[in-house]
Amino acid sequence: MENQRIVLASRPEGWVTPQNFRLEKAAAGSPGEGEVLVKNLWLSLDPYMRGRMSEQKSYVKGVDIGEVMVGQTVGEVVESKHSKLKPGDKVLTQLGWQLYGVTKDATKVDERAPLSYYLGMLGMPGMTAYFGLKDIGQPKPGETVVVSAASGAVGSVVGQLAKIWGCRAIGIAGGPEKCDFVKNELGFDECFDYKAGRLRDQLRDIDVYFDNVGGEILDICLARMKLFGRIVVCGMISDYNATEPYRVKNLRAVLVNRLKVQGMIVFDWKDRYGEALKALGGYYAAGKLKTRESVVEGLANAPQGLIALLKGGNFGKQLVKLA
Amino acid sequence: MENQRIVLASRPEGWVTPQNFRLEKAAAGSPGEGEVLVKNLWLSLDPYMRGRMSEQKSYVKGVDIGEVMVGQTVGEVVESKHSKLKPGDKVLTQLGWQLYGVTKDATKVDERAPLSYYLGMLGMPGMTAYFGLKDIGQPKPGETVVVSAASGAVGSVVGQLAKIWGCRAIGIAGGPEKCDFVKNELGFDECFDYKAGRLRDQLRDIDVYFDNVGGEILDICLARMKLFGRIVVCGMISDYNATEPYRVKNLRAVLVNRLKVQGMIVFDWKDRYGEALKALGGYYAAGKLKTRESVVEGLANAPQGLIALLKGGNFGKQLVKLA
Repeated sequence: MENQRIVLASRPEGWVTPQNFRLEKAAAGSPGEGEVLVKNLWLSLDPYMRGRMSEQKSYVKGVDIGEVMVGQTVGEVVESKHSKLKPGDKVLTQLGWQLYGVTKDATKVDERAPLSYYLGMLGMPGMTAYFGLKDIGQPKPGETVVVSAASGAVGSVVGQLAKIWGCRAIGIAGGPEKCDFVKNELGFDECFDYKAGRLRDQLRDIDVYFDNVGGEILDICLARMKLFGRIVVCGMISDYNATEPYRVKNLRAVLVNRLKVQGMIVFDWKDRYGEALKALGGYYAAGKLKTRESVVEGLANAPQGLIALLKGGNFGKQLVKLA
Repeated sequence: MENQRIVLASRPEGWVTPQNFRLEKAAAGSPGEGEVLVKNLWLSLDPYMRGRMSEQKSYVKGVDIGEVMVGQTVGEVVESKHSKLKPGDKVLTQLGWQLYGVTKDATKVDERAPLSYYLGMLGMPGMTAYFGLKDIGQPKPGETVVVSAASGAVGSVVGQLAKIWGCRAIGIAGGPEKCDFVKNELGFDECFDYKAGRLRDQLRDIDVYFDNVGGEILDICLARMKLFGRIVVCGMISDYNATEPYRVKNLRAVLVNRLKVQGMIVFDWKDRYGEALKALGGYYAAGKLKTRESVVEGLANAPQGLIALLKGGNFGKQLVKLA
């Protein structure tokens, strides 16, 4: 069976370009003992992928030149030598940017929600929102929670959880269309368009800032935090493509207002994924969690999907439909 | 009885100058019901005073033009209409930069340690070190604790507590004389001279950074923190006199290494001062806590003492001997 895969052709300097990727053909391979051959159906595109394309230190080792780009997928088992999986089972994998792959590490998912949701609000992005907001943000009812990239995979869940937990939810997003969605579809109390350039005046009295972007927006929020406020540092997408990092000037607020600023990555909570999945699944089943997906069709279009995501040009959880 | 006092004459722009202060004479006043008249013996000079001289938002309201400069003192009760204090008692007060004052708020101190120590390692600076390191830094035995302004009132206690609690203590100080003191008198494992410009190479694998200075040294330490490191933000003396704040470029490390960065002010622990005083007093009595004082003689010299402190020109806990 023929496989198609996208490998890292070169490391980006600044913005990612299509030339950093190469589409290859290869044999799909067959499973050894304890393995499955999976046909990938959906590929998740996420900001962290930018980090893996660099040699710069990030959470984990980067992708080598010539290696398949990393990423989470939902797929279907085609052939199995795994004791607990059979052909037709739907599974979560880390097979990356390819149509087929052989792996030991496939987790069966039930099909109560659309399969793609397991890459979004019921997957890593949803769990990131859940643990970051709950454990680091520690919002109390009545507090004001601000989240950037509010229409995105993580941000949209953060704000909805804030509402479920009795807080005031304020989103930050790019452009009136996204802001309208965040406020009117997702049910945030307010959403501000950072492109309008008025965040400095619009934001105030923030108890929890859930930061997906870093840079200037983080700097503005620092200056608008309340006493004993918490900042969840979950992403710095604004820096990922910058050759020089943004230089933050309002760090003095950490001292004056006794803020807590803490970085996170969802892997640190891997022992508690079950708790998050149960909570998020319950909210979804109760109609309290909505999502929006931004889908590109076909593996060959994955690079442009990632580039759009990194530039803020997508709208909702970014996915590639592979089959 | 004649009093002398120093009032704020004008607000500094950038560095503090002697012209920002004015020495005045006035009557000492006499105590009303529940009050004492105190003759101040020692005045503490501290970096936070720079903040109080500005209109810029800080922890608490600033000093108004024409008002007596704030500060903690140790003094002796001269006249008392307070039920629990009598003439001759030694007391801690917030009477500020003056020779005499009338107050309700005087706390009797025992005299087991030299009186000036109640403004230093057994006072606010010592308690700042204790709560900041213990509650925010949460050092575990064997971890590496780095502290800036290591020869100063707070920093010297931080490093000694780190050693007492089983950690490796690394100081940062200005010049070989201070570094020698920190290493050989206070017993830190190492002390680096930031003026030598090699901190970037010298520092590595920091678990806890206790920050008294902010600015470029904070920026360097951010990039040298270990996974799950903690930064206690206790002071930003490098920014207090800057007209433009230093802009931090390594905040990405908060995300990559999942750091916790938290601001503190000792007042937030006021319910637990007794715990700190008991612990610090015990370590002092056991010969495990040393200190060094930098003393200017006479109220008139207090401004130059503060200016030296803010420029890093002092060495040890900065005090004014008033009588």
